[in-house]
Amino acid sequence: MAIKKDGGLAEVIAGQTEISTVGKQGIGLTYRGYSIQDLAAFATFEETAYLLIHGKLPNEPELRQYRSKLAGLRSLPPRLRTILELLPDTTHPMDVLRTGISALGAIEPEEEGRTQADIADRLLACCGSILLYWHHYQASGARIEAETSSESIAGQFLHLLHGRRPSELHEKALDVSLILYAEHEFNASTFAARVTASTCSDFYSAITTGIGTLRGPLHGGANEAAMELIEGYRHPDDAETGILQMLAMKKRIMGFGHRVYSVSDPRSDIIKEWSRTLALDAENKRLYVISERIEQVMQREKKLFANLDFYSASAYRSMGIPTGLFTPIFVLARLSGWSAHIIEQRANNRLIRPNAYYSGPEPKMWLSPDMRT
Amino acid sequence: MAIKKDGGLAEVIAGQTEISTVGKQGIGLTYRGYSIQDLAAFATFEETAYLLIHGKLPNEPELRQYRSKLAGLRSLPPRLRTILELLPDTTHPMDVLRTGISALGAIEPEEEGRTQADIADRLLACCGSILLYWHHYQASGARIEAETSSESIAGQFLHLLHGRRPSELHEKALDVSLILYAEHEFNASTFAARVTASTCSDFYSAITTGIGTLRGPLHGGANEAAMELIEGYRHPDDAETGILQMLAMKKRIMGFGHRVYSVSDPRSDIIKEWSRTLALDAENKRLYVISERIEQVMQREKKLFANLDFYSASAYRSMGIPTGLFTPIFVLARLSGWSAHIIEQRANNRLIRPNAYYSGPEPKMWLSPDMRT
Repeated sequence: MAIKKDGGLAEVIAGQTEISTVGKQGIGLTYRGYSIQDLAAFATFEETAYLLIHGKLPNEPELRQYRSKLAGLRSLPPRLRTILELLPDTTHPMDVLRTGISALGAIEPEEEGRTQADIADRLLACCGSILLYWHHYQASGARIEAETSSESIAGQFLHLLHGRRPSELHEKALDVSLILYAEHEFNASTFAARVTASTCSDFYSAITTGIGTLRGPLHGGANEAAMELIEGYRHPDDAETGILQMLAMKKRIMGFGHRVYSVSDPRSDIIKEWSRTLALDAENKRLYVISERIEQVMQREKKLFANLDFYSASAYRSMGIPTGLFTPIFVLARLSGWSAHIIEQRANNRLIRPNAYYSGPEPKMWLSPDMRT
Repeated sequence: MAIKKDGGLAEVIAGQTEISTVGKQGIGLTYRGYSIQDLAAFATFEETAYLLIHGKLPNEPELRQYRSKLAGLRSLPPRLRTILELLPDTTHPMDVLRTGISALGAIEPEEEGRTQADIADRLLACCGSILLYWHHYQASGARIEAETSSESIAGQFLHLLHGRRPSELHEKALDVSLILYAEHEFNASTFAARVTASTCSDFYSAITTGIGTLRGPLHGGANEAAMELIEGYRHPDDAETGILQMLAMKKRIMGFGHRVYSVSDPRSDIIKEWSRTLALDAENKRLYVISERIEQVMQREKKLFANLDFYSASAYRSMGIPTGLFTPIFVLARLSGWSAHIIEQRANNRLIRPNAYYSGPEPKMWLSPDMRT
């Protein structure tokens, strides 16, 4: 028996996957054989989701049909809208998604006649609707409609958020970000979703697990933590001083390093370039410039590289996205990867049930309540 | 790197725990050092939950205070009641709990000023209220109050279900069942909840993961599957014939064997005795007699022992509990174990992020849509 008492499973192979490679030679990332560089340069998020969920790149008619299918699945059932209205305006947006998708599983359960891919596509199409219906209702009482003229999932998200068609640049930048966040092998949320799927539970339960797991600051919450850090500085010099102080106090700087990548995060260069382009397009370049300085300090002082979360923060802010919606966008993207992994787990299932090393007390004699201290 | 490509983590130690032992010499089970036999014979479920969550058996004043605290936490916030009313009457009861507890996390979030144990206690106290509020509303439109004169969690559950104080025998039998189901080391739902907790996500997310994972028929759903099997037979001889046919067709018989126990399930003898006592008390002994025959056939033909789920089925039916509520009762019990594990994971946290063995395609050249097949 392999003894791994430290509990992180960091060097344990927990199963097989055909979906993605992470960190080959410390740097690589492919989705079903296609490099993340090619996907970010040439694909759309819809193509990427199709590739992950359906196992191959769609040809032209398939892609047309897929986009049209997704665009037809955006609306929310009335019961779900009312449930979202009942979640307080103080709710963490990830709790909105966790509850909303769990409730959708009650209203539109996994049943015969619906394929797993149908459920995955429905969730991809309506995740943004769930989040932004709640967002606008709590902000202003508005009950928005989920239909817009924007065709892509990225465009639809920004359209619903801002109430107008986004610029091509913003739509494209968010689209690329969704591609970068779509899939990442046995990360904690995907692995947890596979554990849920391994008991033969339903699709929605596995997705709900994914959302709840992604919510933590050591996982999906990292892009929000990075934004809070970056926004706290007025000038690159302040940032340098601040980061050096944090390092001296041995505080954790979010958005740097990675459990699996040892040399660099191949997604970071891509999102950095988009963050730069968005900053050049915008009036305010401060956050980008501060981000660059923080990256330099971390490289110089700790030899740590920026991961995907770090430059995603300034990119999202340039598109006018509130910080609280950063991790939910990660959900929107990762729904495709989770779905692919749930389907893969089910196709060759074995219950995931590890063992524990017992370090507790030896057998004890029973004592009645009056004998206890 | 330990290569475990088969994906079940069956021989992998995934971390340390002080909470329980499972399967020492193939048979043992202790909660914080106390044997399951002593707990089932002498403890109440409230004492057991306190032991798991607070780390020690309560003395007399602590136990009095704890019972009184739990009894004061049964009511549901009005928003949650309305959300439960919006879940269709066709909803899987586990989806009701998954959604209801997720929504409670939005309404009463984990915040400063509430300890982890406070949230665990609240969930233990109101889990039955959530389930049975929905159950009665969907069955008859009744909006039940969660307050009853029954003091224990088991008594409260049966009181809410049947609308009257349960007999002492029924209350005690359900209480013992909750003790038996309370905790079981790194089973799939507990392990999944720890993965969620390991990203520093909130308490409710980890519990929601536990519920979604327990839902599957390879885990918590097994007691319901066992009931459907047993109820399908009119007479022990029919059961023997039917089971032999299923075995010949290599069908899986739910409620037998266990991933970790190799010799017997120490909980099974205890629940079998309670199931027998309940059957003697009841008019109809058929289900118990059929259960015994199935157990004999499985032992004789496959050398497989009944696990906890098997005799729980007939015991629950004797108390008038509908099959669809069996797995939710497992949730009610296991909330205590999950909570103990979340608290333990957080106390010495490391992100749980295993690796995968990649068995997918080699790197592929990008093809534009018009070039694809």
